[in-house]
Amino acid sequence: MTKRVNIAIDAMSGENSPKKIIDGIEISLKKNNENFFILYGKKELLLNEINSRKIISENCEIVDTIDVIKDDESPLSATKNGKESSMWKTIDSQKTNKADISLSAGNTGALLLMSRLILNTIEGIDKPALAGLWPNNKGVNVVLDLGANIECSQKNLLDFSCMGSALHRSLYPNEVPKVALLNIGLEEHKGNDVLKKTFSTLKNSHSKNFDFSGFIEGNQIMNGDVNVIITDGFTGNIALKTAEGTANFISKNMKKSLNIFSLLLSYYSLKKFKEKLDPRKFNGAIFLGLEGPVVKSHGSTDAIGFSYSIEMCNKIIKSNLIEKIKSNLFTVDQ
Amino acid sequence: MTKRVNIAIDAMSGENSPKKIIDGIEISLKKNNENFFILYGKKELLLNEINSRKIISENCEIVDTIDVIKDDESPLSATKNGKESSMWKTIDSQKTNKADISLSAGNTGALLLMSRLILNTIEGIDKPALAGLWPNNKGVNVVLDLGANIECSQKNLLDFSCMGSALHRSLYPNEVPKVALLNIGLEEHKGNDVLKKTFSTLKNSHSKNFDFSGFIEGNQIMNGDVNVIITDGFTGNIALKTAEGTANFISKNMKKSLNIFSLLLSYYSLKKFKEKLDPRKFNGAIFLGLEGPVVKSHGSTDAIGFSYSIEMCNKIIKSNLIEKIKSNLFTVDQ
Repeated sequence: MTKRVNIAIDAMSGENSPKKIIDGIEISLKKNNENFFILYGKKELLLNEINSRKIISENCEIVDTIDVIKDDESPLSATKNGKESSMWKTIDSQKTNKADISLSAGNTGALLLMSRLILNTIEGIDKPALAGLWPNNKGVNVVLDLGANIECSQKNLLDFSCMGSALHRSLYPNEVPKVALLNIGLEEHKGNDVLKKTFSTLKNSHSKNFDFSGFIEGNQIMNGDVNVIITDGFTGNIALKTAEGTANFISKNMKKSLNIFSLLLSYYSLKKFKEKLDPRKFNGAIFLGLEGPVVKSHGSTDAIGFSYSIEMCNKIIKSNLIEKIKSNLFTVDQ
Repeated sequence: MTKRVNIAIDAMSGENSPKKIIDGIEISLKKNNENFFILYGKKELLLNEINSRKIISENCEIVDTIDVIKDDESPLSATKNGKESSMWKTIDSQKTNKADISLSAGNTGALLLMSRLILNTIEGIDKPALAGLWPNNKGVNVVLDLGANIECSQKNLLDFSCMGSALHRSLYPNEVPKVALLNIGLEEHKGNDVLKKTFSTLKNSHSKNFDFSGFIEGNQIMNGDVNVIITDGFTGNIALKTAEGTANFISKNMKKSLNIFSLLLSYYSLKKFKEKLDPRKFNGAIFLGLEGPVVKSHGSTDAIGFSYSIEMCNKIIKSNLIEKIKSNLFTVDQ
């Protein structure tokens, strides 16, 4: 039997938890029995939820925890006062227990701060980053940073390029990572100083782990010509949420324009379209740059969405993402 | 007869010019005869295009110019060497001729730089900004800056709030401008220092010209809860283009999912949807903060799109936008 992937889960995190979490684990176990789950949360609640579901009880261990981090708590106070929380224990499980990876659907800011405190930063990386998946015309983009770092230096963006391409290779091993820097123009002289310097270094460094495709603009993110998109956390977060809002706006308005007969006639192909772009399939942002991997599920996703973030955890461990990142790193003069 | 609006036009600018420009003027004149056009470009070409169209020849004057600014020319070299270009003359027309406003579909960077050199900045404004229109669920947003200033101070963002709300009042006089700052979170402590300071000043300043609605995130831009969105030029450009790319991606993929019968059955309502969001209707970015107004049409728009930017010029002059901006400004301690 292959070595199992031990996933520590903050079972109290996100909307409708722990029910959503337990249901998500069940969906995942029915597809893939390589994972073992260490659940952190209120034991009684969890046992109630698991009840007679043997497939879950056979593949998990429960660790009783007292506190739960609230979604609106400030990261600082959550971290200061949350040492007994399910979130803290879930991350800490990589040090104190046998967990390979930690997964939570809770407060993002708190999760990032706690992870930085508990898990060491990989040597050579200044700032860890939050990476996410974003559909494009030909497959899937890895985009980072999505909000962990408001301001980024050239060194940070170079680290992100290495980490992002390692993540892409982990999740999509058959594709060559093509890295691009998000900018407001394609020419080498466009953008701020940090972007110009990063462009010049990447252009001259020829990493064996990825191809550098230069700058791209916002309207090219979904073209599929590149698949690893690098930006600072402020810009990345604005771009991601603007895309989310626009997609909702267009699809809602377009659907309103279709009469009931059209909807029925195209039922299956519309369903296929919806499935292809189902945000649950892209659920799971990865906190990259620490010695241990941490995955953040969307708080409002459902059990199916949560099962996709479990799948992501499995792939990250089985592909040795952390080792890939370490061997991907390159140093440059500032 | 009401006083005519004198619009100086860079007739050599954008794709398919001067044909597109002349056709756009014809469309516009058939709807509204309040405008008079001063066309800058190669006289022979323009006369050929106008040919026997009396409606145009009666409402325009042609000024022969030698050079044309290319789209890929750097703003600096265009400005240095372009004093005899149709673009330079079009802007200069506000000083040397009788033009009230200047309109070009050419090189944005060159247009911005030339405008700053030729037209004075309004007293009290440090940096002019590029503002555009963006559809939302209830109407239209004014968004600025869309790319004129990569980095912005608190003072710049405050100026943008005043100028943006003045523009919204000019174009949509029946609505109250509701100003929001684009950020990566809604809470007062979120974002960079400049945003936090601007938030605090706007919250405490109570302008009589607009309501301040706080921060918004990218996914709320199209909600329609606010209608003037303030951001630096880097973020604004990324957000605008990301929205553009996402809208194209979703509508293309959704249309692909509809079979021919569905498309036929919903032909009229889909057409209405397309019309409602037709980007040509939102064509025209306004360079705000100078003593004279300058409008930039999309280079790749067609004659209909160009006619909308003419309509925008007319509204800007008839509503006394520049005066509105001057009386809207307020000063704050840095």
